[in-house]
Amino acid sequence: MKTTSIMQRNNVNVLGSGDRTIVFAHGFGSDQTAWRQQVETFAPNFRIVLFDHVGAGKSDFSAYSPRRYSSLYSYAEDLLDLCAELKLTKSILVGHSVSGMVSLLAALVEPDCFSDLIFLDASPRYLNDVGYYGGFEQDELDAFYEAMSANYYAWASGFAPIAMATEDKPELAAEFARTLAATRPDIAQAVAKVIYQSDHRADLSRLKVPTVILQASDDIAVPPQVGEYMADKIPQSKLVRIDARGHLPHISAPEIVTSAIAQCLAA
Amino acid sequence: MKTTSIMQRNNVNVLGSGDRTIVFAHGFGSDQTAWRQQVETFAPNFRIVLFDHVGAGKSDFSAYSPRRYSSLYSYAEDLLDLCAELKLTKSILVGHSVSGMVSLLAALVEPDCFSDLIFLDASPRYLNDVGYYGGFEQDELDAFYEAMSANYYAWASGFAPIAMATEDKPELAAEFARTLAATRPDIAQAVAKVIYQSDHRADLSRLKVPTVILQASDDIAVPPQVGEYMADKIPQSKLVRIDARGHLPHISAPEIVTSAIAQCLAA
Repeated sequence: MKTTSIMQRNNVNVLGSGDRTIVFAHGFGSDQTAWRQQVETFAPNFRIVLFDHVGAGKSDFSAYSPRRYSSLYSYAEDLLDLCAELKLTKSILVGHSVSGMVSLLAALVEPDCFSDLIFLDASPRYLNDVGYYGGFEQDELDAFYEAMSANYYAWASGFAPIAMATEDKPELAAEFARTLAATRPDIAQAVAKVIYQSDHRADLSRLKVPTVILQASDDIAVPPQVGEYMADKIPQSKLVRIDARGHLPHISAPEIVTSAIAQCLAA
Repeated sequence: MKTTSIMQRNNVNVLGSGDRTIVFAHGFGSDQTAWRQQVETFAPNFRIVLFDHVGAGKSDFSAYSPRRYSSLYSYAEDLLDLCAELKLTKSILVGHSVSGMVSLLAALVEPDCFSDLIFLDASPRYLNDVGYYGGFEQDELDAFYEAMSANYYAWASGFAPIAMATEDKPELAAEFARTLAATRPDIAQAVAKVIYQSDHRADLSRLKVPTVILQASDDIAVPPQVGEYMADKIPQSKLVRIDARGHLPHISAPEIVTSAIAQCLAA
């Protein structure tokens, strides 16, 4: 028994209607509202499940602790709690960024919860390694953590436009900067470190659920090689490059992401 | 708030007296009673903390679920809960087998809990990999899981003497076979898989706590190369080969393990 229910803890919202269920899982510095444009399209024909990871959005912040969330496994456990609570089987999971690996870890434990995984700009490892290009060297990540810790709000306003990569629509970067700034700095810093230091490469080959890897270009967090790497390692996977830029294409190029998801679902 | 306290959940026992605290953490198929001979030696001069991992010994079995314990991070979280409950700082952690990596993961999150880690027959990865000898191929592990699942009790009585490696003292193998047989088969099978498929090699270099790696010979689970690998990767570490055989030297050669621990503490 938990003092707050899973529904409250993760601010779970269920809407739409249809025989099939799509669970949308948000990424770092964001929350369930990031999916609003996809929700609008799919709600008439699908049951939609939205939630905020603990520490994000309107989740129960008292459930957060750096000890509990020191790895992605706890987020995966939360996701499986949610699936159990809603009795979800064979649901479609769309996971942005860190939620790609979170859904993978969940699917390794209880594959029957999911019929399909759709990763959007996900990565199993951000750090370069021998024979692996993740996009970052440790000293770059250390400088990144240092900047976050020195002045979180300054860091957020600098990071948002780079992540969004939409110079022509500065209002989108401003929106992401606001979401980031709304995150508790101590949580944002701890979570960023957990994500950027994670390494789930060895887990990819164990995934039994069919997976589509959607990848945008000019993504500060995920270089194109990472999508190719995952497609190579995940047994039933397909890499789809989408005509969108930046790390948050579901916000910056919503119709392209929506259409890519629709194609996955129709296939 | 949890329905059972941490003290009950992990069947925590505190005994002995002294300025310094030693936490003894048991391995797979075993429980806190495995440390009885070390406890006898150290209790007069140290405060001793004993516990059973969830799913083992007299822990609260209702706290176990394969979802919650799908990785070693949850065991590490439990260990940190215990340290917080007992307000342990700078304690000495002696971890057998899987508890080596469990204590490492805990020490990465809250290094101040520990002054020293002492691993006894621990391994960061059991599977061989390119450039790494862990001792097992995947098909060997699959056969191992298959045997556990086909007839757990037959498996336990076959595995115990191999793990104990004390042909001259069959009563020790019989004792370990009884502890294994007392474990719920579904839990033993799930936990064995979580352990044997784990890979924490990348975490070794991040450990900031001084670590002594005690390694016996003829250990079915941990070949000598693994101790050397850990000593090479963990920054402040020392490999100590002990004159004992098998995977449970704290039971089969208690005075040798006790004396090795005493030397670590005196250093």
